[in-house]
Amino acid sequence: MANYEAVANQFIEFYYNTFDTNRQGLISLYRGTSLLTFESAQTQGDKDIIEKLVSLPFQKVIHKVVTQDAQPMSNGGIVVLVTGGLMVDDSPAPLAYSQIFVLQPDGGSYYVAHDTFKLTYPLV
Amino acid sequence: MANYEAVANQFIEFYYNTFDTNRQGLISLYRGTSLLTFESAQTQGDKDIIEKLVSLPFQKVIHKVVTQDAQPMSNGGIVVLVTGGLMVDDSPAPLAYSQIFVLQPDGGSYYVAHDTFKLTYPLV
Repeated sequence: MANYEAVANQFIEFYYNTFDTNRQGLISLYRGTSLLTFESAQTQGDKDIIEKLVSLPFQKVIHKVVTQDAQPMSNGGIVVLVTGGLMVDDSPAPLAYSQIFVLQPDGGSYYVAHDTFKLTYPLV
Repeated sequence: MANYEAVANQFIEFYYNTFDTNRQGLISLYRGTSLLTFESAQTQGDKDIIEKLVSLPFQKVIHKVVTQDAQPMSNGGIVVLVTGGLMVDDSPAPLAYSQIFVLQPDGGSYYVAHDTFKLTYPLV
């Protein structure tokens, strides 16, 4: 449990780097039971999740993490809240987002059991 | 599992209503093992969590939920991402926040196993 922050740091760096350079490569991070909620649309299973992520309508994407907060779970998992910004294609300004990851241990590594991604907008 | 969204809805309404009217009353929602990360400061246990929440330096507070996304967990839990706005005291504009709750079943009800709260700011 002591190193949950190191695991979260390493995961987040790897996840967004892979997302931004080789989205298809994210498939190794999900399992058949994994759940993704992307902009309130829910998808289950590694294959369907990757199909969803790969089909997102942008070519270039850069994530910039602004904050990350991790907690250890009693079952060995880690729950992480990321807030950050997303630059897609030639958009002039980043879009703000918040994202949850629930990581679960699996044979010396971790997979994404839960992933919830939500764009956030300035409040009026 | 089918009604995880109804549980999440009911919880969120109850949680913020209690927070905004009787912060001390939130203690029934946490346990000794619960973890709170509030603006990146981590606190464990119902008593310390309530002490933290009650000591927050504002008198009046109103939460307005903008979005909520829930997922069922394999152990019977529910993970929820809330985004919303917070009005404190006589501040003219709401502060945007994102919050994770991981709810766990406990004798016919649910408690908060994990709570991560983070204010979010416009990106430059």
